Amino acid sequence: MSHNSYGHLYRVTTWGESHGPAIGCVIDGCPPGIRLDAADIQAALDFRKPGTSKFVTQRREPDTVEILSGVFEDDRTKGQVTTGTPISLLIRNVDQRSKDYADIRDKYRPGHADFTYDAKYGLRDYRGGGRSSARETAARVAAGAVAEKVLAHVAGAVIIRACLVQVGKVTIDRARFDWAETARNPFFCPDPVAAEAFEAAIEKARKAGSSLGAVIEVVAAGVPAGFGAPVYGKLDADLAAAFMSINAVKGVEIGAGMRAAELSGEENADEIRIRKKRPHFLSNNAGGILGGISTGQEIVARFAVKPTSSILTPRRTITAGGEETEITTRGRHDPCVGIRAVPVGAAMMAAVLADHALRHRAQIGDKKAMKSAR
Amino acid sequence: MSHNSYGHLYRVTTWGESHGPAIGCVIDGCPPGIRLDAADIQAALDFRKPGTSKFVTQRREPDTVEILSGVFEDDRTKGQVTTGTPISLLIRNVDQRSKDYADIRDKYRPGHADFTYDAKYGLRDYRGGGRSSARETAARVAAGAVAEKVLAHVAGAVIIRACLVQVGKVTIDRARFDWAETARNPFFCPDPVAAEAFEAAIEKARKAGSSLGAVIEVVAAGVPAGFGAPVYGKLDADLAAAFMSINAVKGVEIGAGMRAAELSGEENADEIRIRKKRPHFLSNNAGGILGGISTGQEIVARFAVKPTSSILTPRRTITAGGEETEITTRGRHDPCVGIRAVPVGAAMMAAVLADHALRHRAQIGDKKAMKSAR
Amino acid sequence: MSHNSYGHLYRVTTWGESHGPAIGCVIDGCPPGIRLDAADIQAALDFRKPGTSKFVTQRREPDTVEILSGVFEDDRTKGQVTTGTPISLLIRNVDQRSKDYADIRDKYRPGHADFTYDAKYGLRDYRGGGRSSARETAARVAAGAVAEKVLAHVAGAVIIRACLVQVGKVTIDRARFDWAETARNPFFCPDPVAAEAFEAAIEKARKAGSSLGAVIEVVAAGVPAGFGAPVYGKLDADLAAAFMSINAVKGVEIGAGMRAAELSGEENADEIRIRKKRPHFLSNNAGGILGGISTGQEIVARFAVKPTSSILTPRRTITAGGEETEITTRGRHDPCVGIRAVPVGAAMMAAVLADHALRHRAQIGDKKAMKSAR
Amino acid sequence: MSHNSYGHLYRVTTWGESHGPAIGCVIDGCPPGIRLDAADIQAALDFRKPGTSKFVTQRREPDTVEILSGVFEDDRTKGQVTTGTPISLLIRNVDQRSKDYADIRDKYRPGHADFTYDAKYGLRDYRGGGRSSARETAARVAAGAVAEKVLAHVAGAVIIRACLVQVGKVTIDRARFDWAETARNPFFCPDPVAAEAFEAAIEKARKAGSSLGAVIEVVAAGVPAGFGAPVYGKLDADLAAAFMSINAVKGVEIGAGMRAAELSGEENADEIRIRKKRPHFLSNNAGGILGGISTGQEIVARFAVKPTSSILTPRRTITAGGEETEITTRGRHDPCVGIRAVPVGAAMMAAVLADHALRHRAQIGDKKAMKSAR
Repeated sequence: MSHNSYGHLYRVTTWGESHGPAIGCVIDGCPPGIRLDAADIQAALDFRKPGTSKFVTQRREPDTVEILSGVFEDDRTKGQVTTGTPISLLIRNVDQRSKDYADIRDKYRPGHADFTYDAKYGLRDYRGGGRSSARETAARVAAGAVAEKVLAHVAGAVIIRACLVQVGKVTIDRARFDWAETARNPFFCPDPVAAEAFEAAIEKARKAGSSLGAVIEVVAAGVPAGFGAPVYGKLDADLAAAFMSINAVKGVEIGAGMRAAELSGEENADEIRIRKKRPHFLSNNAGGILGGISTGQEIVARFAVKPTSSILTPRRTITAGGEETEITTRGRHDPCVGIRAVPVGAAMMAAVLADHALRHRAQIGDKKAMKSAR
Repeated sequence: MSHNSYGHLYRVTTWGESHGPAIGCVIDGCPPGIRLDAADIQAALDFRKPGTSKFVTQRREPDTVEILSGVFEDDRTKGQVTTGTPISLLIRNVDQRSKDYADIRDKYRPGHADFTYDAKYGLRDYRGGGRSSARETAARVAAGAVAEKVLAHVAGAVIIRACLVQVGKVTIDRARFDWAETARNPFFCPDPVAAEAFEAAIEKARKAGSSLGAVIEVVAAGVPAGFGAPVYGKLDADLAAAFMSINAVKGVEIGAGMRAAELSGEENADEIRIRKKRPHFLSNNAGGILGGISTGQEIVARFAVKPTSSILTPRRTITAGGEETEITTRGRHDPCVGIRAVPVGAAMMAAVLADHALRHRAQIGDKKAMKSAR
Repeated sequence: MSHNSYGHLYRVTTWGESHGPAIGCVIDGCPPGIRLDAADIQAALDFRKPGTSKFVTQRREPDTVEILSGVFEDDRTKGQVTTGTPISLLIRNVDQRSKDYADIRDKYRPGHADFTYDAKYGLRDYRGGGRSSARETAARVAAGAVAEKVLAHVAGAVIIRACLVQVGKVTIDRARFDWAETARNPFFCPDPVAAEAFEAAIEKARKAGSSLGAVIEVVAAGVPAGFGAPVYGKLDADLAAAFMSINAVKGVEIGAGMRAAELSGEENADEIRIRKKRPHFLSNNAGGILGGISTGQEIVARFAVKPTSSILTPRRTITAGGEETEITTRGRHDPCVGIRAVPVGAAMMAAVLADHALRHRAQIGDKKAMKSAR
Repeated sequence: MSHNSYGHLYRVTTWGESHGPAIGCVIDGCPPGIRLDAADIQAALDFRKPGTSKFVTQRREPDTVEILSGVFEDDRTKGQVTTGTPISLLIRNVDQRSKDYADIRDKYRPGHADFTYDAKYGLRDYRGGGRSSARETAARVAAGAVAEKVLAHVAGAVIIRACLVQVGKVTIDRARFDWAETARNPFFCPDPVAAEAFEAAIEKARKAGSSLGAVIEVVAAGVPAGFGAPVYGKLDADLAAAFMSINAVKGVEIGAGMRAAELSGEENADEIRIRKKRPHFLSNNAGGILGGISTGQEIVARFAVKPTSSILTPRRTITAGGEETEITTRGRHDPCVGIRAVPVGAAMMAAVLADHALRHRAQIGDKKAMKSAR
């Protein structure tokens, strides 16, 4: 057991506080011989990096990653490759501005973990939220970049994509869903019309000193049938934990999700035909997972992120000493923290799938694993 | 790692197939000196037992539990008590009727795990769904009954209740919510008006050879502040995995859940006041968990169960040999499997909380743990 | 974490007390499609069974094993095979004679776990030692029998053998070492001359109301190079824990063992040549493990079992109430418990290797795994 | 599961290669509120540091440790304290001299992990042994320093000491055993006469281009009765794994160890009396552990370290390409690597005890845990 680790065979341990000297992670269990450069991980971090639009926090972190172990290169390897030993990644914190947070030392910010950390530990690193800061997600994204390479190595071409399908009460129109659109707006929105509505809503919230929640959808295509295991090692159970562990997440769905409750038995159970000599499902209410095991269809998951708790509107709260007071959270905050959760969601999907790819290979073996792909 | 275990310190391993000789579980990590009789567990099993109304499967299992280890009684103990060693629970299968399932040996039932088990393992025990059967949940309920006693022993009076808040498109009216009602109808419904609507909807579905989904709500009151741990040992992450691991679950919510996406920052962040000298939250959108750690409020979780996949309406599918065909699932099936999931949800909540109570005590200690309670 | 489980991917959880209704284990992670009958496990249990000679305890347990889950047979499988789901094994206790132990309820037997169980748990099942009884090793032997099949399935022909190389101060003569001899005497002794000396020594101890310790050697031949992992997943570290967890074990050695301290650098480091186009080590001080990873040589381990603590000679001790007293342990006891530890040692070797075979396959893959075999 | 982690509740993950940019570890599960400065850890590292006498490797590493997370200080904490979140420790490698190792790239050094790493991973970081280098033990010592503080915090005054009791064929005289002597010679030898004999033997081996093995003894005094758990969570099983995981260790003993095989039942089972109103054992053949649980006596463990495999004497070996050749290992090597293993052994004892202190507190609780102390 480890409070700050996830995965069983592709195992990631993250560490670090928002305003400590650095954050990072250790990845254990990576197969050997996989090409891995800091640049691969850096690209993923740059994609996630805050400060790239006015819709996300203005904290300016270069997020430069250093690989401290687990890779090797000489004239016989084709570039730098993993060795099978732990990969330690280090990201120094730079733009910390600790003074911004001095006034929240004694007050519990509603919606934040301030009160619960104090209740549990009797003290807390209040600078920028300490360990509870979304800054920790940089380590997730770094580990996800490595996981994608592991997945390609073990399970072949798996494509993981994520997007924003809802901001506040604005949802996308599925008829306009286009993955290519996610690169054309600062919201990772697959619907260009919704993207404009997202912008308007977020701008309005930002100006009002408020904030908005969001729903992120993560889709993995090309996952072989057979990943996952009954009964507590279910692929969807591990995905649910992975997404719920992301800051501010309050709900997780697979396939039809909460709406599955409204379907009839006939609507829900995805029928199967043969197409091109292979099983073909006529719908995907299951989200690519039946009985905790992948079907070979797209794995489809969604999670809801609550609105940023740090808002300019004054809120009633108490002090650590038990006095009633009010608080206004200044500092650099995202009006919609859900935007930044998009690459984090993709990273968690990659990590869970890499773990299950290795678990599947352990129990079933290589050839069978790959043969079961569909 | 273990595919069929959950929990870290209160650790449960379940085993058994729908039509094997028995099912059961082993519980490791239980504190010593807790009163435990088979009757305590039997009461929970009887509560869950199928065959008690026409709305659930007509399979008639006595579900008689036998405690095979981990308890002891002599003239100095006050009754039978736990010894701190593994508790092995055995429930013999009795009413198996294997012949009911002979015709589904070669066809994959849509919505079931038939296809995925074959894809993963290359074979499957198809009798009654084998390991993927909801019969496994009897072991969960048994382990949950023990967990409740552990929780009382370690954390004091925690009350865990569960109910059905939605069946198909019918939802309860929160204004009529009354826990006492859950004992007065066969649906664990807290709203007597909705209970009647549930009945009508289920009867209609049953007669139509169809089935309905449902949403279960599980609430734990009296949980001390401080249970849970950043970042991957979050209480809500463990709850999400626990609920998602239940058969047919497709979505999990904590507090405001998926709807958190629609709230504004002001609405979402629960304000805090002092009442009777203790922190008092003015709302509970957080569902009693902030930053993965309990606030001392009620822990509120919901999960959606898809409609029973076994329906009388013919559905298109394929054979194991790759031929297109149709299937009609006869046998004894629940028109709304979500009803039986209610006590299962309560059991998983109990097990997760018992585990976190022990984890909290390990890191923080006894006295502090109990002092942080509110 | 689980106090009563071992292994990571081939994971065994045992349960049961000496005088409870039954003992057993759950095996999780077994690959599917492996032929497994109760008879396979029964053969291993019969081999270990106490009561087969006057040198071991006269408790008469039939040790009939029942497979409760995880296997399946129909007309398409070749006999009964594993399904990949948990295998639950049940062995009912029959010959318990609880009255034999009534007088030791209040006294701590020196060398036994009576005092420590009370110190830890505040109570104990004192009947026959409860959970600390060597009866638990029947579950180990059963799990070892399954592990051997897993190992054959994943890693090919691995032969695991164990023998008694020392009883009290009598050691075997390595020049006479012959595995075939182990079947010809009741001591699993590979040296016929030493076997006679073992018999004389044990008889003498038995008549004197005393007991003797022993050293068991376990050898695995045919293990591929590459099993194990740096740094805490070392194959020898897992073997050390596995052997040390057996009742009464006080020392564990790999290869040269404690005597490695006396070797010079030149003597110790096994030189390598090429023989039949493959690496060939000229000696095996390493016991087949370098840097925690198997070399492809024989894995050679030894462990020391202390003399049976239950002896007829009166010993000074205290009561649970803190009074000084004396105790003479009557009942059915082995004069040399080490004899029965021989098959237990072999079983633990099998379980650890099965686990590492799966772990290796997870990280490295099937084909490479098998290619590295030597 | 994690190949490079140990401990369950006090969980340490180490990473890093001999000639990579750095080594380090992440410690998860530490209780909050414990005073912890880099200087505390630095002191332990300095104690272990190579290059302090001519008897150990001349590699000159400053081993400066940096705490990157998990601690906090403000004007209300009494100095810097742990927060309960992961503690990340970083030690930069400085004196790497990679060129020393260029000629061993293609040859497998007998007794080293070169061959097995290649067999497993298909490649290896051969610079200084990469991950298999004893340099990794610096991370163990750092984690051990933190563990000692955790142990003091949870279990009170536990004193852990280690010494060298054998070098080659020279053993100490128990009659002269004096812990104070260990600080007076460069061998951590508790017998001043043996210390001189150690020096002579090591000098002789060094001049001969050879090396010597050693036996380390680790003793923990003040451990409460009750730490450990049946059956696979035994305290001695975890110690055995911890010591066996240290580089070059081939044997582990608890109490009488391998010699327990030679004792009679009367000699072995430690009798108990009452002294000063508390249980008092008349001997300690058990090494302070019965049935896997601490008795309250001194925990006594020993482990054997094989002679340094890197020697100046030419040895027969093969190349990675499968050609027969010879190798002479130049570079900076210890004639007796066992000397440096002394603080490492103490560190592993501290880590295992800290873990078990937390595990005990989880299952039994705080007050009871401390009451059982003797």
